[in-house]
Amino acid sequence: MSYARQLLDTYPGPVNVDASVLAAAIDALSDCAQACITDVDADLSEQNVTEMVTCIRLCLECADVCTASIGVTSRQASYDAGVTRPLLEACVAICKSCGDECERHARHHEHCRVCEQAAGAASRHAGSSWTP
Amino acid sequence: MSYARQLLDTYPGPVNVDASVLAAAIDALSDCAQACITDVDADLSEQNVTEMVTCIRLCLECADVCTASIGVTSRQASYDAGVTRPLLEACVAICKSCGDECERHARHHEHCRVCEQAAGAASRHAGSSWTP
Amino acid sequence: MSYARQLLDTYPGPVNVDASVLAAAIDALSDCAQACITDVDADLSEQNVTEMVTCIRLCLECADVCTASIGVTSRQASYDAGVTRPLLEACVAICKSCGDECERHARHHEHCRVCEQAAGAASRHAGSSWTP
Amino acid sequence: MSYARQLLDTYPGPVNVDASVLAAAIDALSDCAQACITDVDADLSEQNVTEMVTCIRLCLECADVCTASIGVTSRQASYDAGVTRPLLEACVAICKSCGDECERHARHHEHCRVCEQAAGAASRHAGSSWTP
Repeated sequence: MSYARQLLDTYPGPVNVDASVLAAAIDALSDCAQACITDVDADLSEQNVTEMVTCIRLCLECADVCTASIGVTSRQASYDAGVTRPLLEACVAICKSCGDECERHARHHEHCRVCEQAAGAASRHAGSSWTP
Repeated sequence: MSYARQLLDTYPGPVNVDASVLAAAIDALSDCAQACITDVDADLSEQNVTEMVTCIRLCLECADVCTASIGVTSRQASYDAGVTRPLLEACVAICKSCGDECERHARHHEHCRVCEQAAGAASRHAGSSWTP
Repeated sequence: MSYARQLLDTYPGPVNVDASVLAAAIDALSDCAQACITDVDADLSEQNVTEMVTCIRLCLECADVCTASIGVTSRQASYDAGVTRPLLEACVAICKSCGDECERHARHHEHCRVCEQAAGAASRHAGSSWTP
Repeated sequence: MSYARQLLDTYPGPVNVDASVLAAAIDALSDCAQACITDVDADLSEQNVTEMVTCIRLCLECADVCTASIGVTSRQASYDAGVTRPLLEACVAICKSCGDECERHARHHEHCRVCEQAAGAASRHAGSSWTP
């Protein structure tokens, strides 16, 4: 069981949403942020780095937005739809863009395939209707 | 002249928006993130910390979303309205909530007045119609 | 297999250390950062929040230092002992302090027990002699 | 007067060090993190991006370590030399490396000159003996 899930299960206040769904979302965002950070470094190690510039940029954006989304979704007690909904909208959008770009390189670069999968999972979890 | 402005003035590609307006927004978001981080610590030092819990939470959220917004708005070449607009919408919303809560405490805690001003400025700059 | 591990296994350049050991360290740091973020929010929800102030502060520090350590250890190609070693020294120190403080509250607050375990694992992994 | 300085001047607990020196350090670290984030994007826009790979990597590291250092130095009440000293040692080391690399490109790329100055200032401020 992930730490996100264990912490939600021991949370002292009410959790507004299904804890298993929320924990899965936090885990997926965390995986995606980590994958994007490492994929940037892997892209920079490729000989054709010029062709990887868009991928690097989107991975940087994706890591930034996923990190903010983890923080906001982890703080159950201060849930505010006016913040969380547009933030997750931005998160889904950048995860999709990042995943699409990684998919373009996946045939040549295995690390992009791994990152594509992480971004795809994050996009699905961040986009599912788990907000109260 | 701030580093944000100097870097935009030396940016090798096209900057899609007025550099002075964008630099002012980045500076305001950076000030706000910094103010929120320190205000959390100041709030935790108050005797009535129980009454500061909402303020602490909103400052934590605000720092997270401002930090992501700095990253995304600093990367001009990968501008994508589908990401930037909702992200800035979330940013304006949390800066307003955070500033409003800080205002409630400003009479008793000077550090909350300072943070209120930073959040107010960030809200105005993030909300101005400077996106292309 | 974690994303950290998959990305190291598909890394285009040389990985200076045992990939399984490095991946385990990155995963432990990532778990710890996530646990600390959520534990802060859980602490803020406790009735005796005044007694949790030290725990909140240490969790905030721990999340910050773990996050930086994830970034630096994920970028294999730019490994520099002059940066990585003191950073991980700081990381081990704050993970230990954070874990010790969480342990003090673990009997009363299950979320602190979970965070203690994450911090303990991060401390061990960040402190193991896996740097080249 | 910067927000960092205003917040230190209104801090409810004792500030262990000279507030003007600490505020200058926080401001310099914040400027450097911001400069590095933007310089990465500027580097990625250069035609000779292959030659900029080291610069990009060091800027990413530098932004990560500066960001953690801002958080830790902003939280006066939880000051712990066992964390702060090695963290700032890492911070000085990466700011120097980043500044040196930016200096190599400063003649051709003005944005690297700007980033070099921010990194140099951050290195000096983070390295000054202002810790208690």
